[in-house]
Amino acid sequence: MNTRKVAVYRHEHFNAAHRLHQPEWSEDKNREIFGKCNNPSYHGHNYELIVKVTGVPDSLTGYVMDLKLLSDLIKETVLDRFDHKNLNLDTQEFKDLNPTAENICIVIYDLLRPHIPADKELQIRLYETPRNFVEYPA
Amino acid sequence: MNTRKVAVYRHEHFNAAHRLHQPEWSEDKNREIFGKCNNPSYHGHNYELIVKVTGVPDSLTGYVMDLKLLSDLIKETVLDRFDHKNLNLDTQEFKDLNPTAENICIVIYDLLRPHIPADKELQIRLYETPRNFVEYPA
Amino acid sequence: MNTRKVAVYRHEHFNAAHRLHQPEWSEDKNREIFGKCNNPSYHGHNYELIVKVTGVPDSLTGYVMDLKLLSDLIKETVLDRFDHKNLNLDTQEFKDLNPTAENICIVIYDLLRPHIPADKELQIRLYETPRNFVEYPA
Amino acid sequence: MNTRKVAVYRHEHFNAAHRLHQPEWSEDKNREIFGKCNNPSYHGHNYELIVKVTGVPDSLTGYVMDLKLLSDLIKETVLDRFDHKNLNLDTQEFKDLNPTAENICIVIYDLLRPHIPADKELQIRLYETPRNFVEYPA
Amino acid sequence: MNTRKVAVYRHEHFNAAHRLHQPEWSEDKNREIFGKCNNPSYHGHNYELIVKVTGVPDSLTGYVMDLKLLSDLIKETVLDRFDHKNLNLDTQEFKDLNPTAENICIVIYDLLRPHIPADKELQIRLYETPRNFVEYPA
Amino acid sequence: MNTRKVAVYRHEHFNAAHRLHQPEWSEDKNREIFGKCNNPSYHGHNYELIVKVTGVPDSLTGYVMDLKLLSDLIKETVLDRFDHKNLNLDTQEFKDLNPTAENICIVIYDLLRPHIPADKELQIRLYETPRNFVEYPA
Repeated sequence: MNTRKVAVYRHEHFNAAHRLHQPEWSEDKNREIFGKCNNPSYHGHNYELIVKVTGVPDSLTGYVMDLKLLSDLIKETVLDRFDHKNLNLDTQEFKDLNPTAENICIVIYDLLRPHIPADKELQIRLYETPRNFVEYPA
Repeated sequence: MNTRKVAVYRHEHFNAAHRLHQPEWSEDKNREIFGKCNNPSYHGHNYELIVKVTGVPDSLTGYVMDLKLLSDLIKETVLDRFDHKNLNLDTQEFKDLNPTAENICIVIYDLLRPHIPADKELQIRLYETPRNFVEYPA
Repeated sequence: MNTRKVAVYRHEHFNAAHRLHQPEWSEDKNREIFGKCNNPSYHGHNYELIVKVTGVPDSLTGYVMDLKLLSDLIKETVLDRFDHKNLNLDTQEFKDLNPTAENICIVIYDLLRPHIPADKELQIRLYETPRNFVEYPA
Repeated sequence: MNTRKVAVYRHEHFNAAHRLHQPEWSEDKNREIFGKCNNPSYHGHNYELIVKVTGVPDSLTGYVMDLKLLSDLIKETVLDRFDHKNLNLDTQEFKDLNPTAENICIVIYDLLRPHIPADKELQIRLYETPRNFVEYPA
Repeated sequence: MNTRKVAVYRHEHFNAAHRLHQPEWSEDKNREIFGKCNNPSYHGHNYELIVKVTGVPDSLTGYVMDLKLLSDLIKETVLDRFDHKNLNLDTQEFKDLNPTAENICIVIYDLLRPHIPADKELQIRLYETPRNFVEYPA
Repeated sequence: MNTRKVAVYRHEHFNAAHRLHQPEWSEDKNREIFGKCNNPSYHGHNYELIVKVTGVPDSLTGYVMDLKLLSDLIKETVLDRFDHKNLNLDTQEFKDLNPTAENICIVIYDLLRPHIPADKELQIRLYETPRNFVEYPA
């Protein structure tokens, strides 16, 4: 079975506060474009994160990647950084980057990519709410 | 981050009655092929609808598409047309088209496509029940 | 462990069409009170049904009630009657009774109660949609 | 069917930021007791709210309470007050009250109770995350 | 707010193998009563466990019980004992007790009860599958 | 609409026991690599299975494939083989193959592929737990 590609997925979650804001714009324009998401005191979400890794399962373990190790990696690389944080105030990544779901998803990809073996593909899905979610790469 | 494609998803729902029926066939053949779904008095579903739009996030907003606007668009274009309706009797779209999940999914795609910017891709997933669902384009 | 009461639950589902309508009222009053749910051509739902039976587990089986038998009972008594039906047109129960979630829930209770041993309690929960649901007895 | 009590439920949601903090305690004690939830910059949640109203269905409508009206009432009384807000900074209710799930649940009960008919019972369930939730009255 | 009772819930899960079998009965009777669940080589489940603790929130913390501590308690008392185990072979509790969902639920209650403050009530809900679940005390 | 490809999905489930073990390795190495999943007495899961079939809907039925027939096919080909079984002991397929989620997913694909029309594509998604799942082909 050694040349068949399988995708494996691990589901994790974190809770964070954020605010959408574009500093190049006036307060009025920010309120017009981002609506309630522009609230200066922040609001928050339970972010649900699904990490997908694609590759050929190892012939001895039968694993594409040990999901326990993938879970540990996500914890160290993503959750310890963002869980119970204010994305705008407490993180380096969103100091100058608007923390939309799209941007958070790309940032998480960039944080994890160096830790995933080069012969494996990586994709990130992020639920901001059960009704709004994003995926990168598309 | 301006050339990286992200998919954004919005989840909506509507309730409708329908009946599967092929007018070119006899009643017996209809009952044989469509079974309980052929009931002449109709039955119904809570349709769960997931709309996926793929593109490069705008550099100023960080949005592929404002999901509030996408939600409004789905409401005006799809939900106001099908919610709490009998698909066979109350809609133009299924007057001569069997309202299978496959056909409803393609119809929703065709209704939304003209309203989505041409440089963005569109995909529709429709749950007829939690155990039966379809996706177009595949 | 023979005197401790445990509740057991079985989750089933059926799909049906219905329409809310009070024949004692004018068409206008019906439309005002029931809104979209009054649509004369019907609409429909995936009803999710949870049946709860409470009693002391049998000392030999360890069961309050065999959930396979409870599932068969629900199928024969409720699902075969309502699944893929138009509640207003195809059923005896809702010929003169408005098929609101409340009334459907009480009807299902009355259908099942004679088949549940007298020393066990019965409770019905019915989801009309994931966001609207009812329970009897309360 | 006029004397049988039925419970009806409506599921809504809101997103908010908060921080757990007891001003009578030192910073160290706050960090010890509330851990990550004490983060001074706030974090946030998608709160899922289930409102239960119990009573005898009206003989003409078949409703305990019109769930569309209950949904509107929750929106005006609870969601417009808390959605996309910082509970600690933006609300009157949590100026001097620690916004734990328990306290938010009691506050929502107190906000809704005056608007629910006196002959009906009210109960609130609040999910802070899919794994942590509370209910009042218990 | 100090005399109002609130229920708090914590959701955990574990995976285990089991087999239903009554040693007082013949093999035939066991197969007749327990069907596929009697398979001598065992089968298994992802058990979802919801622990409910009811009491008056502490006036300083606003907590009925710190859910992080409740989660730790469940882990030490229940999950470390049953997770990734064969309930029939690897545990003391089900050596002479048929591991039906009802019995597992009562056993978990008895394991946790001594660790929950005496002025608080405890209730256990256990999902054997998404469609079959039990609750104790009822 | 006859040349547009649609994907249809059917969701089924089965319960099974298994154990991860590589006979070429020592007991110590097995325990190191597979951890709790190596428990010699087995543990188990509620496997959730989603089968995806892609093709052009038939112009008369409006179906890519009748999901009732697909459900029957999955039952005969997969569920009757694995449901309430010990994958390591009771099945031919995992006698010499480690029953990781990846391998189970490929085996299910190979079992179903001959029964799906050649002009249709097949993909399998398998949830071992709500947080760990796999997909083949990727």
